[in-house]
Amino acid sequence: MQGKPFSQLRVGEAAEFGKTVSEADIHGFAGICGDFNPAHVNEEYARGTPFGSRIAHGMLTASLISTVIGTMLPGPGSIYMQQEMRFSAPVYIGDTITARAEVVELLQEKQRVRLRTTCTNQEGKIVLDGEALVSAPRG
Amino acid sequence: MQGKPFSQLRVGEAAEFGKTVSEADIHGFAGICGDFNPAHVNEEYARGTPFGSRIAHGMLTASLISTVIGTMLPGPGSIYMQQEMRFSAPVYIGDTITARAEVVELLQEKQRVRLRTTCTNQEGKIVLDGEALVSAPRG
Amino acid sequence: MQGKPFSQLRVGEAAEFGKTVSEADIHGFAGICGDFNPAHVNEEYARGTPFGSRIAHGMLTASLISTVIGTMLPGPGSIYMQQEMRFSAPVYIGDTITARAEVVELLQEKQRVRLRTTCTNQEGKIVLDGEALVSAPRG
Amino acid sequence: MQGKPFSQLRVGEAAEFGKTVSEADIHGFAGICGDFNPAHVNEEYARGTPFGSRIAHGMLTASLISTVIGTMLPGPGSIYMQQEMRFSAPVYIGDTITARAEVVELLQEKQRVRLRTTCTNQEGKIVLDGEALVSAPRG
Repeated sequence: MQGKPFSQLRVGEAAEFGKTVSEADIHGFAGICGDFNPAHVNEEYARGTPFGSRIAHGMLTASLISTVIGTMLPGPGSIYMQQEMRFSAPVYIGDTITARAEVVELLQEKQRVRLRTTCTNQEGKIVLDGEALVSAPRG
Repeated sequence: MQGKPFSQLRVGEAAEFGKTVSEADIHGFAGICGDFNPAHVNEEYARGTPFGSRIAHGMLTASLISTVIGTMLPGPGSIYMQQEMRFSAPVYIGDTITARAEVVELLQEKQRVRLRTTCTNQEGKIVLDGEALVSAPRG
Repeated sequence: MQGKPFSQLRVGEAAEFGKTVSEADIHGFAGICGDFNPAHVNEEYARGTPFGSRIAHGMLTASLISTVIGTMLPGPGSIYMQQEMRFSAPVYIGDTITARAEVVELLQEKQRVRLRTTCTNQEGKIVLDGEALVSAPRG
Repeated sequence: MQGKPFSQLRVGEAAEFGKTVSEADIHGFAGICGDFNPAHVNEEYARGTPFGSRIAHGMLTASLISTVIGTMLPGPGSIYMQQEMRFSAPVYIGDTITARAEVVELLQEKQRVRLRTTCTNQEGKIVLDGEALVSAPRG
């Protein structure tokens, strides 16, 4: 149950995780964090917004990055230190989002890893783009 | 159901939302995003980590900021554009986390708002610190 | 809240429970057990499989048998001892599955009940077939 | 997103997945399958049973095997064909269950894999023991 230690990580390696974002996912997410912004849980309201329908919370999309980092690359034992992200397009109910993390820098001194993190929808459009800083699992 | 339009926002104003993070919240969050990193859902494993017990996903903590921005300040009609954050301390089952967003800059031209975003535990310790960029609701 | 004691059970008696399997059921099931196999939660991936769309976890279908045994026949007080099953056809989102348990043998000495357990979809096709061994409620 | 093809599987190889079974997991599982047997969701009733407290559904424990098979060994692309299991000890709220699947036979002709499947609690006690038959991912 340990992820990849720092010494085994290579710049350029990447991992992906994909999930179809269901209505239940969005409503469940609202139910955990309390973000009942009507853009997420009120279809009548959402029809009147520029998006035209309910959209997923940006943080729900972002949470798929957590899955890649916490379970795949580097995986268990990683400590999530920083994340920065831009939400670049809406995620609708039924969209299939693929989160990807790619190692872009290995910081030797503190054994930290910088990863480019993107989420893409089923049409290949980037819906989230950013970077994570992670402390790698102990080797 | 509309939040505060740009013209009514003032630098220095703030809003807060607090929630006790339960085991059900953490397991439910894992269940939505798929992040079953054992640090979050396996108590036996977690005992052997530097944290000593299961901890919340950083993105779960971050999602409480989404609640402040999406339902309070500026509230419905906001479009979440960017978030950057540092995870500075672990969040344990039973911790009560208060998310706070404070307006730090008003960008006139594009009617955008920069907010400092922090999450603090019941002992006043900052567990997440960062900044959000939001497009304000139309007035 | 007690089920049928051993002395009242008869070979040939049966009970059924049916439920439409929703997308939320499948995503929720994945969220509890951690089985995010893309065949269950990623529609884009699932399109490329022999099934052509997301399918329910076999264990989700099987869990409907647990409902029949644990709440109907024999019902509360039963102790589930063994289950064997064959997954014979896929279950898709929107399928209505009827789980059925039928008493096929009464084992006097240890007061145990052998049941044939089947799950059938709305077209009458058997999707799961097997047998359960249960310790009957105390009379 | 493809698991191990038949040609790469070896007798004796194994994979494990562990999770702490929370009250929310058990109540959520009941909510999906409808097995509201009071032994699982009614603490007052459960106190009067031989188990003394609420226990997890056997099928919830079994679902952790699905996670190993569907996401790890052989992983995505596997088709679950058969499962037989004995429930040998109760699983209580708070128990950490480790599901394990080990390849015990490779059936060349139909490219199927027989796995021994066990679930063990935090004290090393086997709570579920059985066997799975799986059609391996295409290579």
